Amino acid sequence: MTGGYLDAAAGLPWHPVAVAAWQAALDDGWADPLRPTGPGRRAAVLLDAARAAIAAEFGIQPDELVFAPSGSSALRQAVQGSLAGRHRAGNRLVHSTVEHSTVLRVAEQHRRAGGTVTEVPVDAEGRVGAQEFVAAATAARVATAVLQAANHEVGSRQPVTDVLQGLADAGVPLVVDASHQVVYGELPAAPIVTADARLWGGPAGVGLLVIRRGVRWQPPGPVDEAESGRALGAPSVPAVVAAAAALRATRADRAAEAARLSDYIDQLRRRIPELVPDTVVLGAEHDRLPHLVTFSCLYLDGQALLTELDRQGFTASSGSSCSSDSLTPSHVLVAMGALTGGNVRLSLHPGVTQADLDRFLAVLPVAVAEVRAAAPGSPPATAPAAERSPVLDSRGRRCPLPVLDLARALPELPVGGELVLLADDPAAAGDIAAWCRMTGQQLVGGGPDSGFRVRRLH
Amino acid sequence: MTGGYLDAAAGLPWHPVAVAAWQAALDDGWADPLRPTGPGRRAAVLLDAARAAIAAEFGIQPDELVFAPSGSSALRQAVQGSLAGRHRAGNRLVHSTVEHSTVLRVAEQHRRAGGTVTEVPVDAEGRVGAQEFVAAATAARVATAVLQAANHEVGSRQPVTDVLQGLADAGVPLVVDASHQVVYGELPAAPIVTADARLWGGPAGVGLLVIRRGVRWQPPGPVDEAESGRALGAPSVPAVVAAAAALRATRADRAAEAARLSDYIDQLRRRIPELVPDTVVLGAEHDRLPHLVTFSCLYLDGQALLTELDRQGFTASSGSSCSSDSLTPSHVLVAMGALTGGNVRLSLHPGVTQADLDRFLAVLPVAVAEVRAAAPGSPPATAPAAERSPVLDSRGRRCPLPVLDLARALPELPVGGELVLLADDPAAAGDIAAWCRMTGQQLVGGGPDSGFRVRRLH
Repeated sequence: MTGGYLDAAAGLPWHPVAVAAWQAALDDGWADPLRPTGPGRRAAVLLDAARAAIAAEFGIQPDELVFAPSGSSALRQAVQGSLAGRHRAGNRLVHSTVEHSTVLRVAEQHRRAGGTVTEVPVDAEGRVGAQEFVAAATAARVATAVLQAANHEVGSRQPVTDVLQGLADAGVPLVVDASHQVVYGELPAAPIVTADARLWGGPAGVGLLVIRRGVRWQPPGPVDEAESGRALGAPSVPAVVAAAAALRATRADRAAEAARLSDYIDQLRRRIPELVPDTVVLGAEHDRLPHLVTFSCLYLDGQALLTELDRQGFTASSGSSCSSDSLTPSHVLVAMGALTGGNVRLSLHPGVTQADLDRFLAVLPVAVAEVRAAAPGSPPATAPAAERSPVLDSRGRRCPLPVLDLARALPELPVGGELVLLADDPAAAGDIAAWCRMTGQQLVGGGPDSGFRVRRLH
Repeated sequence: MTGGYLDAAAGLPWHPVAVAAWQAALDDGWADPLRPTGPGRRAAVLLDAARAAIAAEFGIQPDELVFAPSGSSALRQAVQGSLAGRHRAGNRLVHSTVEHSTVLRVAEQHRRAGGTVTEVPVDAEGRVGAQEFVAAATAARVATAVLQAANHEVGSRQPVTDVLQGLADAGVPLVVDASHQVVYGELPAAPIVTADARLWGGPAGVGLLVIRRGVRWQPPGPVDEAESGRALGAPSVPAVVAAAAALRATRADRAAEAARLSDYIDQLRRRIPELVPDTVVLGAEHDRLPHLVTFSCLYLDGQALLTELDRQGFTASSGSSCSSDSLTPSHVLVAMGALTGGNVRLSLHPGVTQADLDRFLAVLPVAVAEVRAAAPGSPPATAPAAERSPVLDSRGRRCPLPVLDLARALPELPVGGELVLLADDPAAAGDIAAWCRMTGQQLVGGGPDSGFRVRRLH
């Protein structure tokens, strides 16, 4: 794989040792490991060995490790099973506002089924306060609490260790989504932890669900005998063997690799705002994942930028509200109060070199300028003067157009003047606020119903 | 793979073309097919092609085909999603008593959640009556009905076509588990159908869920965007490509292969009772799967026979109540009123030859005799005379011991004499009845509480 692939957090190609391990395991690992004789028994031996290898890598017992059909399946089982196992303690689920969408969907279903949910907000870096989280999780009738090890969109680490200390006496189990954390870091010492082999060069279809001994958990629905009745089916044994091999290979150099990639991220965090005007880097500068950074560019559609980068040989992803796949803005960026439009996430892997990084930093400013120039409604620097108007009607226009309209109209006002921007795109509220912060203008008030009142300050 | 593997219905080794297809697909198929650019787009192209190939093979539209993480996961989603999609029509689930355990578990959960369930019984061959099934499925407030294409333990085909005709006007959707049927046969024309790629030489981890256009179905729980929100996660693209290749290769010769294997099954059905005393072949002689047969041997533990066959190089499986993995008897054999102890299922595959068959038929009688001789409590032919006793206490003894006790004691009575057998193993009721039928003795009455009254007739 080339270093143009900057979307490691969406999955990596199989590590070469994973391919070799898979091929070696196919002859003896194709059968159902639950069958007591013949090929089934040989598959069970391989499965046991892979389970032991992964458990040893993470410092847990093999019987604490369950294989699920995917990372999101593991996370779903983790939360639903913890709720089921603790239903006598209560029916409240506590989670941060920036968890993976899988958690939000489980919470929504829990609410519809009569349960209650507390969402703990995050700061501008996407991080919960440990005290605030613990206070929410130790309230009455909390069944379980969910907190990711680090955010998957902006990389900020959550205060999991402090939260675990705070919960130690209350008996409330913490479910930790450690998918991105464990590629280069340690497995959190939480009662229930999940991960995904795709992120370290293992196969798709291997999710990890760690349930520590003695933790209350029960299957949330009908299961079969596979994985001690804790997952929804038997894992593919060759795939699990490949996942184990990739894990050990990836983590063999993890300290050096994390330092190298973290230095690249530092470079990206510093240089992108220098090279690309009207761009903000999101998430924590320190105490973050070593291999991931997210930035948002004003006045452009994130999906259009991804397409242009793709043409230049770079693959990235976007939590942008303007992606072709989803019309709703990234809930993570909304929760942080960050600009949701024009968003790009870069996530690195061992194949990325300094030369790749330099080439990306050369390509990015040009790509942004081209996308901005091609946008419907041209960018503010080249915009024709708009008529002065106290009311600017951007209803029916999708982001980033309302912000573009605002950026075009505001300079036409006298300093101190105000306009009212009408906009009904669900992402507009966050984007207008973020634009005002970034450009030093003032969002005086209002909202989607009455319009957004914006004052020109300079 | 050698022809000593006689457990094809538990899964096959990957077909050689599946291995080749998987390897070819790995470079372009490792990424998440939902990602719109770069490797994700290439993975989506491969996934689309594999979906189209499988759909064409089965004569369905690609958008009617969903990939699930396993066959049992597909079946679970099929039934739960049909119940959810039809909850306005009612909350009754109808299924035969011999469905896969996955269906029974879903039904149990449905009942616990306040739903109602109708179980349609089967005859001695394991087959429902079409009229009886239709009558149950067209009763008031039926949400969905479930009927396998053919039974996975004894091979009898179910009257799916007649049932579909009977349900045509009622609007009740039929879910058909076609896992074993589609290896050599056609996909049933039911609204919802499931299958499992393992059974045709594809990888573990690829279940098929077919939902015909216009059929009411909705996800039974939180899902993500993969597979149009109809499965629990994204499939492994190389695995799906391998499944498609194996399917086409396996089904290319399906008529000839089905005829060849069906002839082998006919030989087994005829010769096993000739070669092995006190043995009965179960399931339908005609209108059955071409590659599967089940028999039960009196006076032995099925698991012990499997172990002995394994030592001789043959892998088979057992629905026996005495397997090491489960203490409950096979619900299929119980529903048929068949002997649950000493049960062996043989399922064939394209690698099995006439020479393998002949060797198996040479090994089986010896293996049965050895296991019977080694059983705790020796078999009736060599048993020392037991004291005559009107009450025989086998409580606390696991099958096949109660039947062994009975077989030893009954010949000591005068013809026309009776004894009362006390037995509390859950499999005993079915096994004692089946033994009496097989040996021409009479089960007069009684049960687990009062004891079983058995009369010597000859």
